[in-house]
Amino acid sequence: MKVAGRSTRTIWLHADGWSVEIIDQTQLPHRYTTARLTTLDEAAHAIRAMLVRGAPLIGATAAYGLCLALRKDASDETLAAAAKTLLATRPTAVNLRWALERMQTALLPLEPAQRPAAAYVLAAEICDEDVRLNEAIGTHGLELIRAIAAKKPPRARVNILTHCNAGWLATVDWGTALAPVYKAYDAGIPVHVWVDETRPRNQGASLTAWELGSHGVRHTVICDNAGGHLMQRGQVDLVIVGTDRTTAAGDVANKIGTYLKALAAKDCGVPFYVALPSPTIDWTIEDGVRDIPIEERDAREVSHIRGADTSGRITEVQLIPNGSSAANPAFDVTPARLVTGLITERGLCPATREGLRSLYPI
Amino acid sequence: MKVAGRSTRTIWLHADGWSVEIIDQTQLPHRYTTARLTTLDEAAHAIRAMLVRGAPLIGATAAYGLCLALRKDASDETLAAAAKTLLATRPTAVNLRWALERMQTALLPLEPAQRPAAAYVLAAEICDEDVRLNEAIGTHGLELIRAIAAKKPPRARVNILTHCNAGWLATVDWGTALAPVYKAYDAGIPVHVWVDETRPRNQGASLTAWELGSHGVRHTVICDNAGGHLMQRGQVDLVIVGTDRTTAAGDVANKIGTYLKALAAKDCGVPFYVALPSPTIDWTIEDGVRDIPIEERDAREVSHIRGADTSGRITEVQLIPNGSSAANPAFDVTPARLVTGLITERGLCPATREGLRSLYPI
Repeated sequence: MKVAGRSTRTIWLHADGWSVEIIDQTQLPHRYTTARLTTLDEAAHAIRAMLVRGAPLIGATAAYGLCLALRKDASDETLAAAAKTLLATRPTAVNLRWALERMQTALLPLEPAQRPAAAYVLAAEICDEDVRLNEAIGTHGLELIRAIAAKKPPRARVNILTHCNAGWLATVDWGTALAPVYKAYDAGIPVHVWVDETRPRNQGASLTAWELGSHGVRHTVICDNAGGHLMQRGQVDLVIVGTDRTTAAGDVANKIGTYLKALAAKDCGVPFYVALPSPTIDWTIEDGVRDIPIEERDAREVSHIRGADTSGRITEVQLIPNGSSAANPAFDVTPARLVTGLITERGLCPATREGLRSLYPI
Repeated sequence: MKVAGRSTRTIWLHADGWSVEIIDQTQLPHRYTTARLTTLDEAAHAIRAMLVRGAPLIGATAAYGLCLALRKDASDETLAAAAKTLLATRPTAVNLRWALERMQTALLPLEPAQRPAAAYVLAAEICDEDVRLNEAIGTHGLELIRAIAAKKPPRARVNILTHCNAGWLATVDWGTALAPVYKAYDAGIPVHVWVDETRPRNQGASLTAWELGSHGVRHTVICDNAGGHLMQRGQVDLVIVGTDRTTAAGDVANKIGTYLKALAAKDCGVPFYVALPSPTIDWTIEDGVRDIPIEERDAREVSHIRGADTSGRITEVQLIPNGSSAANPAFDVTPARLVTGLITERGLCPATREGLRSLYPI
């Protein structure tokens, strides 16, 4: 998507043809800066310190991390050690494991001398595939938005609410939940996005707001508490969120608070859609509330918050009393009965086993 | 309730017998400091600058503000001018108008020489009445908590979720939603409170957490996003919230986000109670979603947040990108169909016209 009018991905090859550039997302929304990765260790650090985040982008960064390692030493041992180092950066990220295994499977049979060039080709393929998948989600989701716009007076804005960041910053480009929004914006539909700030890490206020603003999409940041009220008053036409894991029956594990928005959408008759690339489907489980373990993250994400002080310096402040404790469940599960439909790279379907199998037959 | 083991109200007469002391709530939870009010202007400033907040406490502070004015000049003109000054501090606060009218009605017929002493007596009565009302809410709510505890294994904790601050800091003592919690704690029931931080102003993280901690009640601060997940996993036994305005049919206007918690409670089968002193009932309206106007507050409350930096200094930081806008609806309406029951100073009742009229006949 665009930054200052220029089409930009979240990761790209430097003009030198071998080093890798990324957006340093830890500085957003207060500063747009890029970082250049020249070694395996720099790539591992970028993932670990969350300069890059979002499952697809982590996978792409890891793929390029292997390229940087092989460039110096293309032996079997280095390939294995580099993959191990990268895998340890974010142990629960599914795409990370997938990207590393794909790279290793393709590269190990080759002569060491051939590996670096082949690795760069494959890493670029992984990036391009992610872009294609997300753009397809956007194309299918666009039809939903177009249908809503068609029922409104000409030029009336279409209000879409989203939670967390399932945008292009979480992927290589387009994003998942936001891909339909960008497609609609580019098609001239007057979209406006209600951006849940998404406590505790505030990915909405910091990342979603920034990326929408950079591309030119109108948006308004709201507290996570406000969505129900807006839906009750008819100010939301459509909710689109992403998902970290989707069960075979269509239950959806996504950032904490998604379930509350789904309940409000149901209560107010607002369509609630989940955008997902098919790799997030976990065909082995049905009941998400029962079977998806929820990560409990550091309480400090709740008790403290980072922002820019009056001099623009990024500062952390404490929000709760000394002596109080905090809890930080990072995800929740939205049962399929609250989901109006799924938006996949192959099209829309109901959030049911039959719906998913109609697009992804065994 | 208790601060450092000592029973404390939010407002009290200084040992000198005429000046008034309050807790400076703008410094909480980072610093516990009191302020001494010696003039009308200091009382007006305390309300305006939110050193005191919460409808009952604002009313009590205004009553003492009149005392301080009359002490210097007990003429009709001064009484009228002082009431006007105080009323302008927070124009929408119902209790403020009510307390001032009550003071004026009682004092105007008196000789000026008698007014100061009578004013102090009446201000003390207003405070004591608030305490009695809230303590009665606590006594009735205690039975709910006792019944839940009785169904659990001995010494198993009773988990109560609350939103915003409807605690003793919002009143003269006891609070409304938290009065049953303090009664249960004092009765030896092992209560634990999930404290919604309550963005944007974070009254939960700063005030509710502080007052529970000061009294010794176990509690955990959570993001507003987390409550649905906790209810889904059986970790909430009861929700109790306050209300700013209750319709004759039992709809409840309370801090933004309350509606989302009520939806989750309904979906998960968790009892959802609203504690209210009867003056918050507005008998003139039925349908809260249709008829209660919702205050839109300054967007800066969403875009910025205050906390203590590493040196303990209270600092404000910006959370959203330059150029993004924010919206800040301050309240939402929870329809009566989502409310399990109301806890009033006269007992419990269903959230219906019939329920309310059974306790408050015409």
